[in-house]
Amino acid sequence: MFRIESEDGNARTGKLKLAHGTIKTPFFMPVATKAVAKFIDSGDFKQSKTQCIISNSLILHLTAGSDAIKKLGGIHKFMNWGKGIFTDSGGFQMYSEQMLIETKAHGVLFKHPKNGKKFFCSPEGSMDIQQKIGSDVAMCLDDMPKFGAKKERILDSMKKTYEWAKRCKAHHEKINRKKQLLFGICQGGLYPELRKKSAEMISSIGFDGLAFGGLALGEPISKMFSAVKVGMGSMPKEKPKYLMGVGFPSQIIEAVSMGVDCFDSTYPTMTARHNYLLTMNGVVEIDKNRYAEDGNPVEKECDCYICRNFSRAYIHHVSKTKEPAGYRLRTLHNLMFMARLMERIRTAIKENELNKLKKELIKIK
Amino acid sequence: MFRIESEDGNARTGKLKLAHGTIKTPFFMPVATKAVAKFIDSGDFKQSKTQCIISNSLILHLTAGSDAIKKLGGIHKFMNWGKGIFTDSGGFQMYSEQMLIETKAHGVLFKHPKNGKKFFCSPEGSMDIQQKIGSDVAMCLDDMPKFGAKKERILDSMKKTYEWAKRCKAHHEKINRKKQLLFGICQGGLYPELRKKSAEMISSIGFDGLAFGGLALGEPISKMFSAVKVGMGSMPKEKPKYLMGVGFPSQIIEAVSMGVDCFDSTYPTMTARHNYLLTMNGVVEIDKNRYAEDGNPVEKECDCYICRNFSRAYIHHVSKTKEPAGYRLRTLHNLMFMARLMERIRTAIKENELNKLKKELIKIK
Repeated sequence: MFRIESEDGNARTGKLKLAHGTIKTPFFMPVATKAVAKFIDSGDFKQSKTQCIISNSLILHLTAGSDAIKKLGGIHKFMNWGKGIFTDSGGFQMYSEQMLIETKAHGVLFKHPKNGKKFFCSPEGSMDIQQKIGSDVAMCLDDMPKFGAKKERILDSMKKTYEWAKRCKAHHEKINRKKQLLFGICQGGLYPELRKKSAEMISSIGFDGLAFGGLALGEPISKMFSAVKVGMGSMPKEKPKYLMGVGFPSQIIEAVSMGVDCFDSTYPTMTARHNYLLTMNGVVEIDKNRYAEDGNPVEKECDCYICRNFSRAYIHHVSKTKEPAGYRLRTLHNLMFMARLMERIRTAIKENELNKLKKELIKIK
Repeated sequence: MFRIESEDGNARTGKLKLAHGTIKTPFFMPVATKAVAKFIDSGDFKQSKTQCIISNSLILHLTAGSDAIKKLGGIHKFMNWGKGIFTDSGGFQMYSEQMLIETKAHGVLFKHPKNGKKFFCSPEGSMDIQQKIGSDVAMCLDDMPKFGAKKERILDSMKKTYEWAKRCKAHHEKINRKKQLLFGICQGGLYPELRKKSAEMISSIGFDGLAFGGLALGEPISKMFSAVKVGMGSMPKEKPKYLMGVGFPSQIIEAVSMGVDCFDSTYPTMTARHNYLLTMNGVVEIDKNRYAEDGNPVEKECDCYICRNFSRAYIHHVSKTKEPAGYRLRTLHNLMFMARLMERIRTAIKENELNKLKKELIKIK
């Protein structure tokens, strides 16, 4: 299911085999919360060389409905996407004041952000929903404390996350009819001893992959990487590792060099909406007047739809005038950038040149 | 330049040769005011089988700038669109309270809708701008009275439009280096005698094509068609005729049967943004709950991107959740619908069956 093919220090490149295709690792997943990303559909993902996306099972359940998606043949058919799909459990929605009512011992009480209807999500319920949706990789329901929570709360979340993880695993084994993989999530905040303990506990359950939750929430980067490092030390090497919520290119390279294989973030799509275009030479703020008459493509070396078809001047024009088509065009470029970045990282690992690449890409955020 | 190939009553089908390609008539132009439509770029137009679009030279001049567009190789290169482009003169912006300051004897005083800067548009200036932009067909600057204006004002606009049309023609002859065609516009409101007179006066100048301005503004449909009929009677048969602002399928068919060859409207794009999908069987209001689990395509006979790739249920989902990608997907379908409609109209004319088609499509608005 996961095969490491080359190593460069702790970094590794290989293949993760899913029910829908095989993914080259390390890889980055754009966020398509509702089986669609902002301005971007499955055809757009395809042309941006995306290998795998992540949707949100809780939000999908509350909008399209997991029963409807199952009836329509599962999420891949629903959104017409033949490649990899992870689903998040909804743990992250505990971060939403609009949605969280209360974390209980046996699950989470949410309210529907639109109609206010209450909805209780148990570990078993989350597994059922993700199985109906039919993603390639389901994520455990974890208990995610708020950023800056006290140690006591972190300890509590760590324990709850472990209990829920065991229940997720047991229930998933019973219901899994679709070669769906299940990843466990460790918590433990920024406390090295708690992060270590949580990583050990979650690793002991025997998941197909292991994720870091509760990070990339605005904490100092050095603290995030300390937590990743101590966690990695307690996880079996042969499992794929997923650092949730990380999307800055510099942080991706750093995490890859520590052995992380998988990432997701709204960074490339969100930053595109703010007129930032990611390039190997740094960010291009395309709405700045200096691009108004620039006939060059955004990035000469890029093969994305916008770099093949439009000048900086045109992208400047549709950006400056806030045309909705511009939002899509910028997003297409940034998605392709992430695909190109990950490809370069995989090649560098194969060639034992990850450190060299890290220095070369120092100008990238 | 314009060749009539088949006739069915007063309706005719043929070819209009432009600097960028040859257009099969009758045809419909989606509105791409700023060299981009709402949610739609040139690649989207292409895949929706659009033959020709219309941009707004005044708005383009005030945003991207006509000098910049010229420097960048003209509008076709700017927006990467190799087919037909009409540009409107800005006459229609007299309808914008945000933009119009005053109609003077020698042109129109506008203010920039964003920065309030004044801008005087003369007939000659409009020709210069449209020539720099490099559209295939330029439209004369006309004086457009508000809907419901008194007869006196209509008479005044008719005279001004004639004076300006002569100046447009004279100036355009001097500056035209790009095989750009120039269409004249008749005014005259809903007064048969004024509409007739205006059509005669504008026809006498010798334009490449003739347009109806000041209609489709909310007047009773029968009055609009009376004005078209009386105007058509005073225009030479061999010139292409353009009914500005008409986009309802039923009105297009009616106008085609009176001999009109060309149309533009925001109808298909705007209606898509309101969740209305146009089909040969009538409108599908895709956000209605009855489509939530409908695995069929929006329209079985349609070959557009969304009908080939997604179910009604998916389009319902992205519409109900107001996802921006949904706005684009719906618009793609409606643009393809217009292309299919015009194709059916052209075929019906060739086969002398326009009346039959009219009855068949009675369910369409």
